Amino acid sequence: MNIELINTGSELMLGRVLNTHQQWLCRQLADRGYVVSRQVAVADTAAEIQQAVREALSRADLVITTGGLGPTTDDLTRDAIAQLLGRQLHEDAAIAASLETWFTSRKRPMPPSIRIQAMVPEGALVLPNANGTAPGLIMEAPTPAGTPVNRAAWLVMLPGPPRELRPMFNDQVLPWLTRQFPVAEPFTCRTLRTTGIGESAVQERIAGPLADLVKRGLEIGYCARVGEVDVRLIARGKHGASVVAEAESQVRELVGRHIFGVEDDTLEAAVVRRLTERRQTLAVAESCTGGRLASRITDVPGASAVFLGGAVAYSNALKQSLLGVRAETLAAHGAVSEATAREMAEGARLRFGADFALAVTGIAGPTGGTDAKPVGTVFIALATAERTTVLAPVNRYDRETFKNVTSQQTLELLRQELVALPA
Amino acid sequence: MNIELINTGSELMLGRVLNTHQQWLCRQLADRGYVVSRQVAVADTAAEIQQAVREALSRADLVITTGGLGPTTDDLTRDAIAQLLGRQLHEDAAIAASLETWFTSRKRPMPPSIRIQAMVPEGALVLPNANGTAPGLIMEAPTPAGTPVNRAAWLVMLPGPPRELRPMFNDQVLPWLTRQFPVAEPFTCRTLRTTGIGESAVQERIAGPLADLVKRGLEIGYCARVGEVDVRLIARGKHGASVVAEAESQVRELVGRHIFGVEDDTLEAAVVRRLTERRQTLAVAESCTGGRLASRITDVPGASAVFLGGAVAYSNALKQSLLGVRAETLAAHGAVSEATAREMAEGARLRFGADFALAVTGIAGPTGGTDAKPVGTVFIALATAERTTVLAPVNRYDRETFKNVTSQQTLELLRQELVALPA
Repeated sequence: MNIELINTGSELMLGRVLNTHQQWLCRQLADRGYVVSRQVAVADTAAEIQQAVREALSRADLVITTGGLGPTTDDLTRDAIAQLLGRQLHEDAAIAASLETWFTSRKRPMPPSIRIQAMVPEGALVLPNANGTAPGLIMEAPTPAGTPVNRAAWLVMLPGPPRELRPMFNDQVLPWLTRQFPVAEPFTCRTLRTTGIGESAVQERIAGPLADLVKRGLEIGYCARVGEVDVRLIARGKHGASVVAEAESQVRELVGRHIFGVEDDTLEAAVVRRLTERRQTLAVAESCTGGRLASRITDVPGASAVFLGGAVAYSNALKQSLLGVRAETLAAHGAVSEATAREMAEGARLRFGADFALAVTGIAGPTGGTDAKPVGTVFIALATAERTTVLAPVNRYDRETFKNVTSQQTLELLRQELVALPA
Repeated sequence: MNIELINTGSELMLGRVLNTHQQWLCRQLADRGYVVSRQVAVADTAAEIQQAVREALSRADLVITTGGLGPTTDDLTRDAIAQLLGRQLHEDAAIAASLETWFTSRKRPMPPSIRIQAMVPEGALVLPNANGTAPGLIMEAPTPAGTPVNRAAWLVMLPGPPRELRPMFNDQVLPWLTRQFPVAEPFTCRTLRTTGIGESAVQERIAGPLADLVKRGLEIGYCARVGEVDVRLIARGKHGASVVAEAESQVRELVGRHIFGVEDDTLEAAVVRRLTERRQTLAVAESCTGGRLASRITDVPGASAVFLGGAVAYSNALKQSLLGVRAETLAAHGAVSEATAREMAEGARLRFGADFALAVTGIAGPTGGTDAKPVGTVFIALATAERTTVLAPVNRYDRETFKNVTSQQTLELLRQELVALPA
């Protein structure tokens, strides 16, 4: 089955807004075994919308459009598509009544332009909008004249605002879709999330051993973000689930040490989860990451159960007063040194009363580097009751990436410690 | 001039990642008078990529692709396009050498697969990658056989990671583009960035007074994000610059109090800039923002000149020991209260020796709310030598948006103070 997605909106083409519909809709469909083969964004003009829809109908079984169903002059999708398909528009009495109710119940006068949203192409199925005024529409459409194949395709038109589109899609479109286009064969997808290993290194380790499973229908995808590589395992058909399960167990054997989670897990969530299970606490002492480490940890709902807090000690004075780093250490080794990282972590652990403390000191750049300690120099320390461990990576990136990569390595240092500890 | 953008990546079609390239590239182009007429996303298969490129070349003067230039087996864009255009690939010695240097300087072994990135289609202009390994490419391409119009179009291929794509586009593609395709008539664009005022309120205040300039060719665009509204002023032709300048001065008169910057300025950069000019220092004390406030400030290069650091005091114990909040205050008013926010700010200012201190305490959610203090309750304090000011907004959002909005209001409280002070 071939699905195409068309996002309309001049603000998309001008780069004023981020197209979150694409990811959201593709994800909803993919998780249920439907894959969007093409997504197109065009401006709000009738000609652009018609050309995109015509092309999509010539290839696809299902075309989903977003946006352009509202009451303003740049909402052209409904009219443009009705014209393209040669359908008359008529006023739908039920929608007209619900529009009036919507305004009456909010004690607002209904602007006359709103009424245009009750206009429906003949033969269209109406999707009431529980969270706004523009209804969605589902239409069967013969492929346009002049295209090589002549067969029926389906068009689903959804309103642009996410809080209207998402419930309408989940509550009305998905049930229709699974009836109209039942998934031909079972679909299994599993994403394993890794850190501390590069994309090519992951591939080199797993591609050979998985080759037999690939012959049996396994598809392997890699998605690299900064400091993370996702390995996506997909298989179709009735043996798909066992192929993916076998692949997962092989990948875990080959690079399992680097796998911190599955699907939408984050590294910080994995760390908070393990600390919560162990009922142990964490404090942090940050210099060059400047609060990014603490912020990632506190992004996790429930982090307050294990995260006590920390110090962002940018100045040397605060490294001494908040964390107890000794003046002699700073004088002898400098603020960016293994010795300082060690004292920051040990100081944070003792002063804040935590089971574990993480500390980071380094040179984020773009300035502040020297020959001996160039931009990107980092010392990361983990203090536990038994010992303090220090890593010294070199992270040469722009400032934002530096903070992300460094906080990632810092969280991973703790995760590896927690994994190695007896339960 | 007709520009099309093609984003390749199966992870896009599966909804695993958000397509930030579309917004970013469209924005960079639109700000310089170039508009993308169509954006397409397809999976990483040679057939899909070739079909999308063939179609785009049949319509566009310039086609920009993103992704698929890396070293793994799903990086197919370079090969698929070379094959489509009938170009041989050869190894570029300069790229091969720079790949080796990239790994040597980072003290990492170079995986053999990396070398494929030195393969370049004949006739292509190579764009060195300062922030990664995959070079970009620019090629002139005749439109494919069978398309109605036969003329040359240009293809620009960019790597997928944003930190590689963005500097490559700004430093190498834009200068090439403005030489190869100069904008037909002068184009002036100015973006004013506001905070603390809603989209409709901005529009209500400025639309009437700017109506005369609109008659003279001014285009006004609004873009609302959480906690921010951009006002975009555009005019074309030789009088465009003076129309936009006049519009800017009117907007500044009407809503200038809310304008924190222009173009890509951030609020945190505006705050750091003003502190740097005044040679004054800042410390922060965070509870519910969990380090997000400090992290935003330290995102600004050079922040270390004015930012001393701060405390992320999630637990009550740390609020007392690090910031000197009194046990009686916590007992009488609770951790989320005006009195606690005040003591956190005053404590941070005195203990960390800063001219200004910001403090935040609140309930981010999703749990932890009560009838008296529901999720979203926040107290924000600014302590100066003269006085302490406290704001009490209610920020009912998801956790991530809560942290962003709350840190935005906190930074804006300080910016307003700095603006009001004598120079």
